[in-house]
Amino acid sequence: MDAFFDPGSVAVLGASNDSSKWGFWLAAGALRGAERRRVYLINSRAASIQGQPTFTHLRELPEVPELLVISVPGPTVAGVVAEALDLGVRAFLIISARVPDAPDLAAAIRSAGGRLIGPNSLGLVDSSNELLLAWGNFTPGTLAVVTQSGQLGTEIATLSARSGLGISRFASIGGQSDVRAAEVLSTLVDDPATTQVALYLESFTGGTALVTALKALRAAGKPTMILTTGASSAGARLAKSHTGSLTSTMDTVDAACRAAGAIRLNTPGQLVELADFFATGWLPAGHRVAVLSDSGGQGAIAADTAENWGLGVPELSQDTGRRMSELLPEADHIDNPIDLDGAGEKNLDTYADVTEALLADPAIDAVILSGYFGCYGQDIPELGAAELAVVERLGQVVGEAKKPVIVHSMSADSQAVTRLWELGIPAYTSIEAAMRVLAHSGFYAAHSGRLTDTQDLTGPVTPWGTGYAAARDVVSRAGVPVPAAVSLGKGREPAEAVPDSGLKPPFALKAGWPAHKTEVGGIVLGLNDLAAVDTAYADMVGRLGEGEYILEEMDTRDHVVEILVGGRQDENFGPVVMVAAGGTETELFADTWLELAPVTHVEALDMIARLSCARLLTGWRGRPAADVDGLAEVIVAVSRLVAANNDIAEIEINPVRVAPGGAVAVDALVVTGENVKSAE
Amino acid sequence: MDAFFDPGSVAVLGASNDSSKWGFWLAAGALRGAERRRVYLINSRAASIQGQPTFTHLRELPEVPELLVISVPGPTVAGVVAEALDLGVRAFLIISARVPDAPDLAAAIRSAGGRLIGPNSLGLVDSSNELLLAWGNFTPGTLAVVTQSGQLGTEIATLSARSGLGISRFASIGGQSDVRAAEVLSTLVDDPATTQVALYLESFTGGTALVTALKALRAAGKPTMILTTGASSAGARLAKSHTGSLTSTMDTVDAACRAAGAIRLNTPGQLVELADFFATGWLPAGHRVAVLSDSGGQGAIAADTAENWGLGVPELSQDTGRRMSELLPEADHIDNPIDLDGAGEKNLDTYADVTEALLADPAIDAVILSGYFGCYGQDIPELGAAELAVVERLGQVVGEAKKPVIVHSMSADSQAVTRLWELGIPAYTSIEAAMRVLAHSGFYAAHSGRLTDTQDLTGPVTPWGTGYAAARDVVSRAGVPVPAAVSLGKGREPAEAVPDSGLKPPFALKAGWPAHKTEVGGIVLGLNDLAAVDTAYADMVGRLGEGEYILEEMDTRDHVVEILVGGRQDENFGPVVMVAAGGTETELFADTWLELAPVTHVEALDMIARLSCARLLTGWRGRPAADVDGLAEVIVAVSRLVAANNDIAEIEINPVRVAPGGAVAVDALVVTGENVKSAE
Repeated sequence: MDAFFDPGSVAVLGASNDSSKWGFWLAAGALRGAERRRVYLINSRAASIQGQPTFTHLRELPEVPELLVISVPGPTVAGVVAEALDLGVRAFLIISARVPDAPDLAAAIRSAGGRLIGPNSLGLVDSSNELLLAWGNFTPGTLAVVTQSGQLGTEIATLSARSGLGISRFASIGGQSDVRAAEVLSTLVDDPATTQVALYLESFTGGTALVTALKALRAAGKPTMILTTGASSAGARLAKSHTGSLTSTMDTVDAACRAAGAIRLNTPGQLVELADFFATGWLPAGHRVAVLSDSGGQGAIAADTAENWGLGVPELSQDTGRRMSELLPEADHIDNPIDLDGAGEKNLDTYADVTEALLADPAIDAVILSGYFGCYGQDIPELGAAELAVVERLGQVVGEAKKPVIVHSMSADSQAVTRLWELGIPAYTSIEAAMRVLAHSGFYAAHSGRLTDTQDLTGPVTPWGTGYAAARDVVSRAGVPVPAAVSLGKGREPAEAVPDSGLKPPFALKAGWPAHKTEVGGIVLGLNDLAAVDTAYADMVGRLGEGEYILEEMDTRDHVVEILVGGRQDENFGPVVMVAAGGTETELFADTWLELAPVTHVEALDMIARLSCARLLTGWRGRPAADVDGLAEVIVAVSRLVAANNDIAEIEINPVRVAPGGAVAVDALVVTGENVKSAE
Repeated sequence: MDAFFDPGSVAVLGASNDSSKWGFWLAAGALRGAERRRVYLINSRAASIQGQPTFTHLRELPEVPELLVISVPGPTVAGVVAEALDLGVRAFLIISARVPDAPDLAAAIRSAGGRLIGPNSLGLVDSSNELLLAWGNFTPGTLAVVTQSGQLGTEIATLSARSGLGISRFASIGGQSDVRAAEVLSTLVDDPATTQVALYLESFTGGTALVTALKALRAAGKPTMILTTGASSAGARLAKSHTGSLTSTMDTVDAACRAAGAIRLNTPGQLVELADFFATGWLPAGHRVAVLSDSGGQGAIAADTAENWGLGVPELSQDTGRRMSELLPEADHIDNPIDLDGAGEKNLDTYADVTEALLADPAIDAVILSGYFGCYGQDIPELGAAELAVVERLGQVVGEAKKPVIVHSMSADSQAVTRLWELGIPAYTSIEAAMRVLAHSGFYAAHSGRLTDTQDLTGPVTPWGTGYAAARDVVSRAGVPVPAAVSLGKGREPAEAVPDSGLKPPFALKAGWPAHKTEVGGIVLGLNDLAAVDTAYADMVGRLGEGEYILEEMDTRDHVVEILVGGRQDENFGPVVMVAAGGTETELFADTWLELAPVTHVEALDMIARLSCARLLTGWRGRPAADVDGLAEVIVAVSRLVAANNDIAEIEINPVRVAPGGAVAVDALVVTGENVKSAE
């Protein structure tokens, strides 16, 4: 990849003198690195471009360029590439759009031992290596941008420059015909200039390689912030037409982000805002916020905004409450949010004293200071020095506590605000921004990546059958409790099998082999005695013919909650496992949670806790609590099954009946197939 | 109220030379209006303040001031007010905090024919009248701020000044001991300087007067934007300690906003952003957005963001699709979002052409233009004039279509961006901001206020009983279908009553008088014949004694959806009606909707449509659709009952069983009481 980010020589094919053309920007950018590398401009008509003599043809260059940048009309690209390969060029950056048969082009380059970024790339930038092969101006800095949409990457770069963060590398990977995001991301792990990464993707093909690259970045202490599309129906339509590939569902992408320790955001603005915070503030260890304000109204709005963003504004501990009373003796009511109620104006030190006391509380993860602070010196010059002294103390206090303090100030640009940022205390004019970065950074801190170590998984357990008997067998062998049962059929009549079986009524009779037994009438419930079983069995055999039938005990326990547990192979990210509310709630209220498989028992418990219906399981309205651990074990078992067997396309246990005495799978479906796509 | 916003004379009690004191800012501000009114500064120790001679005591003034501003320590306020009342002062603005017994103080002022704003006010400003009685600097403009939290109001004023909008009036109403928000809002209806209103409230006491004032503002074409608190547990705790009054639940406040034609927002930033938009852009008639971008990625993110904010990005109509193909002949796929794919760069006029064509489509309510537009002239000076010409055309096109066009540009400050704003086309550097203002303004446009005309309501239908018989009677007379039934008891035995009743089994037997019949065993279901009724009746009489019993037909219809319909008197806003999913979903998923009562049939249908479970009613998975009109009539009836009878504290019909053949109330509870608070 060095040929792309720090080539010894670069040639621009399609260089131009017209400032509204790509060839102009590429030529001008390439020339900026002329002290570091040899730069060749190729144009068949102009003798010189931007004061630099040109070559009329690639073959006239004095050497084979390490990197060839192509910005000529799409239909002519294939011919140019063929010629370049003949000459020995091995690294291609194709800016051109509307290039026919890009996959073939990529294959040709690969088979010659070359590599391609593009087509449809909007260029490459490496600030450390004076490499500027893109449209526009890029401010050097610490954020790397890897993007499938060039202009969206440019927007991130522009916002990053505006916020003072700047760009270390910019890689517009376009159609990803050859070099894909994961490969570029891997180069950033050891890039000393890059401290954070912004990634925009529309296609997640090769998702497992991507997860590996993201984990490596996380391990190197470099946060990756991800934008993607497809959350909306229209976005999905466009992404599909744009890249030709289906986007992954958003819940799978989110699961992959959690597993990889990356964070997904919604817009470039949110992304750069968070990058700014990462570059400055401490990470919160949890989501418990103390809000401190000199205005009851601003404190209340801050608290509402915090909870809107999933943060908690808990009541203060007795100890901290007592400490507050000492620091705010005139306050008649102390709670969180903490209303300074004039104490800050009387003595500016109060701001630092209270903040210090709050940070000392182990039950508080962050402090938000909202209101007038930051304006004192601006409005009342006599107070300027005192306010700046408090700012310095806050910096000290934060450095010792290693917890984030974020200021929401009514001043945008006072000396105090500027100094706060310098001391690692972000200060915003909007309370949303303060809470948003705290929530996002808290999410990031809480999701440091999962192992998903598949080494100890029991390998494939094929061959599979297609019906309920096989599915029951598969999940049961994997450790999922199923009802007690006896086999009928193949000459084994109920009268012979049932009496000695120990099974207790009521019974359910199920045909063992149809893939969809309900649709063919292969299930009868509520059989109360042998006579009823006999009748139902005779009837079912009459209708469906001979075969394996299963007679199960029905689950008639009290206080049952029905839950759906499933797993499947995602075409991009491989095995995933999900849990959902049973019944109509699943669909009506989208009460479902998904993770990459396999998961541990603890992770499975966390999945259950994410469901709105989790409250039904833990003692709803005085009912006894259901066996949540048992349900978690079912999730673990399903996750390990799909992780170990990529020929299981889909597995669905619906419902798992969870009662105080345990979780039992009373129906199961396993779909297998040779056509199951495995993840790359 | 003129004495507050344009007094002929004003006296400041507690004027000061110390710039970190309130008395300094009040004196300095008052003096700025000295050409318009007589200003008196009162301070017992300083001979002059800010170069102006002072008076040592109120009684030394040459006249009784029309407005007295009090900024002295709280405990001394009562004495000062008593003296001032004796002297003839009738308008009081009390800045002082920690004033004991504020309600008594207000009562004393009222009984003397005076009025009070405060205590705990952070002042009054009227830019048209050179009135500045507050801390800080206020930029004159068009937004009026009425606020219970002074500093939150200041934050709004600061953001408004920063955005170029400025302030017409600022009224910090503090504790609302006398003058309340509604009264101040009413003065804004005819204030020529005010075109928009920002309101922050923590207490909604007197909610119906507030709704009336908000409706008058809406009728005058002045949008009111509301902030409040209590959405979070912590915010509610603080607001309670701050104002001493319970905040209304947020769903009731939201219902009141919809009824009044106002809009609630979450933060000062959102509020001022929307005010800026209202001052510039056209209101959208609906939520259908066309997204136009020169980048597929930016278009996709824009579409996702739109749907995040509840906007729709629908597929284009055939006609508009055809028109797009004419305008974008090289595009290989045209959809919404529309990807210009280079056509804009080839010919900048394309931006205006496509926008014009999209606005002409009656199925499109707004156009969002996202991406590079606004940067051309900045990056490539040769294109500046051409880009500005397109901007002018866009202005023309928007003026003709009278639909909003919003630009998301990567440039913050180009000539093009500045000119866009001037032409009524807001331009943001953040796609969230663009979508947020479109969503908020669309909500505002869609909720222009409801009549809630209670004139034709049938008056109180008291006296009420307390049990099911009475509740059944009340809802039935109001028009709610109930199951066929006969009365038993008081000598009327089943054997006598049932055979001739025409009732079909199964039956339900219910005791008619207990307030909570389930708890006392006053209900038996599933009685299949007269013998079963006889046994159950004898048993129930044996347990509960003589009284009125009701034997009902049980509702055994297929395809029933259970829904809860209720109504109550809100302590602030009066009668409200609500509909919710039946069963555990109500609580687990908060699937409920509430409006001020009464509602019309159309409004009731809209309430039903807001429920997530509405899909169960309209043909869920091939089931026949339930009688949604019948359910709506139940809602209408309940809404009119609570609106006409403010001694009905609460009414709950749970469940209403809704099937294809109609909606039937199979249980009902009516709580009445002489202690029911009626709204002011």
